Amino acid sequence: MKIGLDVMGGDYAPDCAIEGAVLAHKEFLPSEKLVLIGDKNIITSKLSVYDYDKDRIEIVHASEVIEMGDSPTKAFASKVNSSVNIGFTMLKKKEIQAFSSAGNSGAMMVGSMYAINTIPGVIRPACAALIPRLSGGYNILLDVGTNPDTKPDVLYQYAILGSIYASEVFGKKNPKIGLLNIGEEEKKGNLLCQGAYRLMKNSADFNFAGNIEGRDLFDDSADVIVCDGFTGNVVIKEAEGFYDILAKRNLLDDFFGRFNYENQGGSPILGINAPVVIGHGISNGTAIKNMVLLSRNMAAAKLSDKIGSAVARYR
Amino acid sequence: MKIGLDVMGGDYAPDCAIEGAVLAHKEFLPSEKLVLIGDKNIITSKLSVYDYDKDRIEIVHASEVIEMGDSPTKAFASKVNSSVNIGFTMLKKKEIQAFSSAGNSGAMMVGSMYAINTIPGVIRPACAALIPRLSGGYNILLDVGTNPDTKPDVLYQYAILGSIYASEVFGKKNPKIGLLNIGEEEKKGNLLCQGAYRLMKNSADFNFAGNIEGRDLFDDSADVIVCDGFTGNVVIKEAEGFYDILAKRNLLDDFFGRFNYENQGGSPILGINAPVVIGHGISNGTAIKNMVLLSRNMAAAKLSDKIGSAVARYR
Repeated sequence: MKIGLDVMGGDYAPDCAIEGAVLAHKEFLPSEKLVLIGDKNIITSKLSVYDYDKDRIEIVHASEVIEMGDSPTKAFASKVNSSVNIGFTMLKKKEIQAFSSAGNSGAMMVGSMYAINTIPGVIRPACAALIPRLSGGYNILLDVGTNPDTKPDVLYQYAILGSIYASEVFGKKNPKIGLLNIGEEEKKGNLLCQGAYRLMKNSADFNFAGNIEGRDLFDDSADVIVCDGFTGNVVIKEAEGFYDILAKRNLLDDFFGRFNYENQGGSPILGINAPVVIGHGISNGTAIKNMVLLSRNMAAAKLSDKIGSAVARYR
Repeated sequence: MKIGLDVMGGDYAPDCAIEGAVLAHKEFLPSEKLVLIGDKNIITSKLSVYDYDKDRIEIVHASEVIEMGDSPTKAFASKVNSSVNIGFTMLKKKEIQAFSSAGNSGAMMVGSMYAINTIPGVIRPACAALIPRLSGGYNILLDVGTNPDTKPDVLYQYAILGSIYASEVFGKKNPKIGLLNIGEEEKKGNLLCQGAYRLMKNSADFNFAGNIEGRDLFDDSADVIVCDGFTGNVVIKEAEGFYDILAKRNLLDDFFGRFNYENQGGSPILGINAPVVIGHGISNGTAIKNMVLLSRNMAAAKLSDKIGSAVARYR
């Protein structure tokens, strides 16, 4: 299995990307290879200071870079030799089994949708985030920004996507699915949630745990929490805001420390035909390491195949 | 000026309600009277342990109580001698100039909408909440749950409501209005926010500060942040969740301590014809005190009149 990484993506690329790549590679199985995509001379030179198994890290040259400020659609169409484009081309051709980048997230979305494509039957892919759980581990929240406007049947599918992600990648058995809402009762909430609740309440496709309120995000009420991408994005940014203030005030403890984005490994895009993870622009070496390992775990779990089978079953 | 309080409302009523009433009353101006509505015998007996100016606290008897578990609409229609009903009747007749309760919040909403009514020109009233600001004081967030589904023109009016509330009740000069969104640029967000931004960007009715993200809720980006009631409700409950965890872990400092609901004084309903504040069910004496004082401040500022004039101007 080969895991691809865009070494040119992120505010601190390529240094942090290479540092994170080497860290991740130390945790790979002997049968797994890492493919670093970017400027070959830079990668070779930066990599030379590290101690690593040369047979299991490949370098693929990319002569262009999609910059953070580039228009995603335009850059993806015109910079065909960029590390992001080459990564997606290799992923499409199955020359690599997963791809991640901390670079231009819009371009990563464009590549995911146009080069990799949505799994047949999936209405909309979703971005997932991890939310630290008081009792240990993480809860999964989706969507966190891919689709700000959505419909009840899309939320229903998010429950399937999240359920498979939680069980196959995080080993949660029969994960509980919560619907993020503004009250516990069935009739509560906006029209979207009322409709989604009706679809979800008797579902045999996942283990529905009912409505979850904002204050339940961190407890054991649900393993996976689904919502529209607007609400999910506000929720994770509010949590980031809290984390930043706590960090500045030296109030982090074992629980709040886990809100550090480094631990999250970026946001996976669920519902497309191959594993793609988008990292935070400010990713340091640890964040890159976790992003690469997350993409590896998604590939190892054959997540896209399993989502495809589940969606085909329910269709 | 007479300020009414439902003494029977709240999980710890009537004890905490009476304690809070006496505390609030100590901060009243000599020209201001407090009207306690509830079981006369209970109030007289409980009040006897306190030292207060007997000429400036009136008791109005109510033989019934709307319980926390009662159906709001049914209870408001049938329990005509309840403290909530009598309070709204007095408010409607201008026998009191403000009314608040920590009781059944649904019944308080029903009373606000049917006994007091929306100010002419206001499409939808909104509930506002206070969010501690890092630099001191509070930011105002609305709507936090009255209308989970809403339209761009309603968000536009929330900006007017919030702007007047911030300036008249909290003394903020030319308050900055932010639109809660998932990106800074104009075209970001769901269809609701895209439409609201177009309406708001050149407004002469308030001082528009653009889009505000979840992580900006606590800083100086805006004094007033508007959003649909679904998102607003999730935002404040997430903050409550954080506060509760911090409190349990003894991590509260001067900033995070201000998330304590006691300081908030409940949620005012903006856009109706008289001042109404709904308190938290678990209100203690301090919370009731702040709720009563908030309703007094809204009455003293003639908030409803000023909102009415502003809405008439913009129509």
